[in-house]
Amino acid sequence: MSQQRDTNRRIVLASRPHGAPTEANFRLESQHLPQLAEGQVLLRTVWLSLDPYMRGRMSDAPSYVPPIAIDAVMGAGTIARVEKSRHADFMEGEWVVSQNGWQDFALSDGRDLQRLPEAARQHPSWGLSLLGMTGFTAYMGLLDIGQPQAGETVVVAAATGAVGSVVGQIARLKGCHVIGIAGGAEKCRFAEQMLGFDRCLDHRDPSLAEQLRSYCPDGIDVYFENVGGKVFDVVLPLMNPRGRIPLCGLIADYNASAPSTLPDRLPQLQGAILRKRLRVQGFIITQDYPHRFDEFVRQMGQWVTEKRIVLREDIYDGLDNAPEIFAGMLEGRNFGKVVVRVAPDQP
Amino acid sequence: MSQQRDTNRRIVLASRPHGAPTEANFRLESQHLPQLAEGQVLLRTVWLSLDPYMRGRMSDAPSYVPPIAIDAVMGAGTIARVEKSRHADFMEGEWVVSQNGWQDFALSDGRDLQRLPEAARQHPSWGLSLLGMTGFTAYMGLLDIGQPQAGETVVVAAATGAVGSVVGQIARLKGCHVIGIAGGAEKCRFAEQMLGFDRCLDHRDPSLAEQLRSYCPDGIDVYFENVGGKVFDVVLPLMNPRGRIPLCGLIADYNASAPSTLPDRLPQLQGAILRKRLRVQGFIITQDYPHRFDEFVRQMGQWVTEKRIVLREDIYDGLDNAPEIFAGMLEGRNFGKVVVRVAPDQP
Repeated sequence: MSQQRDTNRRIVLASRPHGAPTEANFRLESQHLPQLAEGQVLLRTVWLSLDPYMRGRMSDAPSYVPPIAIDAVMGAGTIARVEKSRHADFMEGEWVVSQNGWQDFALSDGRDLQRLPEAARQHPSWGLSLLGMTGFTAYMGLLDIGQPQAGETVVVAAATGAVGSVVGQIARLKGCHVIGIAGGAEKCRFAEQMLGFDRCLDHRDPSLAEQLRSYCPDGIDVYFENVGGKVFDVVLPLMNPRGRIPLCGLIADYNASAPSTLPDRLPQLQGAILRKRLRVQGFIITQDYPHRFDEFVRQMGQWVTEKRIVLREDIYDGLDNAPEIFAGMLEGRNFGKVVVRVAPDQP
Repeated sequence: MSQQRDTNRRIVLASRPHGAPTEANFRLESQHLPQLAEGQVLLRTVWLSLDPYMRGRMSDAPSYVPPIAIDAVMGAGTIARVEKSRHADFMEGEWVVSQNGWQDFALSDGRDLQRLPEAARQHPSWGLSLLGMTGFTAYMGLLDIGQPQAGETVVVAAATGAVGSVVGQIARLKGCHVIGIAGGAEKCRFAEQMLGFDRCLDHRDPSLAEQLRSYCPDGIDVYFENVGGKVFDVVLPLMNPRGRIPLCGLIADYNASAPSTLPDRLPQLQGAILRKRLRVQGFIITQDYPHRFDEFVRQMGQWVTEKRIVLREDIYDGLDNAPEIFAGMLEGRNFGKVVVRVAPDQP
């Protein structure tokens, strides 16, 4: 069932997942188009962003984002066109970055909308990634918390992912030695050949710890943590004094429904933070850095225009496929930033 | 056996402790006074500082300070008088802050010496505490990493200790709501009545978690961690978004010879850091902040002179008692900053 002009398809949260989400946790519904009031725009979703943080919103456990209510539309950043406008600031046909969620159409009073950045005009879906939330996450986490200096060693997990791939490329631009960690030989090759990482290691390789040590002969100054799980354990012993660990995601733990069965690693981490004088800092881009978005768009727009930073997108078609695509992403089956084309790029 | 003018008594590390140190890990030796060469001073130890970090130096496990070698003198900060001088910059009779370690006399070429701060002239042992390493630790950790704002809630463990007591008093000067945690009713009373903490809770009380919650109705913005162990577990759930945790010591873990038997708390900590966007940062005062020592001495000297910051010292006599005093301190038997008077204050 593809997008129709008179019907709104939407995917709602049917039930909360235990462990990995399945299609049974979602429900596809259809409804009439919502009525447009004065001061509103009707938005047509063209690109839907799928991101790991959404897993957190499906649970009602404490999280950094409020849970999605049962029967409510799955939330998501979207790139949309203004289909109809009764709002003075928006014209029909205009591109916007919006929060439509997993549905074809949405109303907005304009307050939650941003113009699509200029540098994304030729490639609107970049407004969800390079020039949107994931790029912004990479930029602020690396530069503001990580504070990489030329010559330092930066390690990035999920190296070909939407955030990790940008972290590594910015670190290279800053003159750092950049080691990526990714799942599988193909992703590692891509990180080295297309993203310019100095080296990328396969986290499935049983010799990961030894390899990481040999490719970080001067230790690790910045570890950009967006994965959690076992990568953290192999990185920690290699951290240098005064190392920085920006932490923006723990995808490895998102699906965990049972507590860790490992021995208590807390004293080990506390000890390392003390002995090595580490800085471990969590951040949530939408809450901590809205005041720096314009700076980010200017700088990243320049890098993107100059092709100094590139992005691999993993593009899927069809809103109704979103649940399956999302589940696959949480298992690392995606390769690059996951976006779903919900409607044709051209009106 | 008290200090003699022609003999140097010294306490060396006889063996590495497993768990809590015992007197068998130390050995008291006597030797002739060392020979003074041109460009040197002979220092006579008057005050010896005993501090928890020394436990780390008795082990050869990785630590933030190099291990003391077997048969070497136990290291320590000291307040000393210049007994003899063949150094142009130091006169006989002058007070200095030195690193003599656990012994009566030491030679120095002057490079490791500091003048006793002016504000400590009437009370030389303060050069080891309020106006020395422990005060400096409190000052930088709280102000530079903790960055407390007026009206915020600051929680300090080991609230009557050398570091914790100063942290709490500075936080009060900055207009914060200050909750201490200490061992026993007497220490808690002292923190409230003499140090001006808003409240001090006994960590042995089984209802510590509930009490802490009720006395921190607005959550916790800064937790000054110098203890580790179970206090951390009750503080973490109460931390506010963008909370800060300066970490300068883990005394509760120093004597641990066996790994924690608790379930793995690492994912829980990582999750809290992410969800609450916490900053957890270790620091070692001597390595991270030497460039700010003068600023500290100026500011703290003023507060001390104005009696806006006070210190309880736990004063013991006799170098030969140092091993027993040290072991007691690690068990929390001290009450205030532990110093040992090795020689009379007056020459």
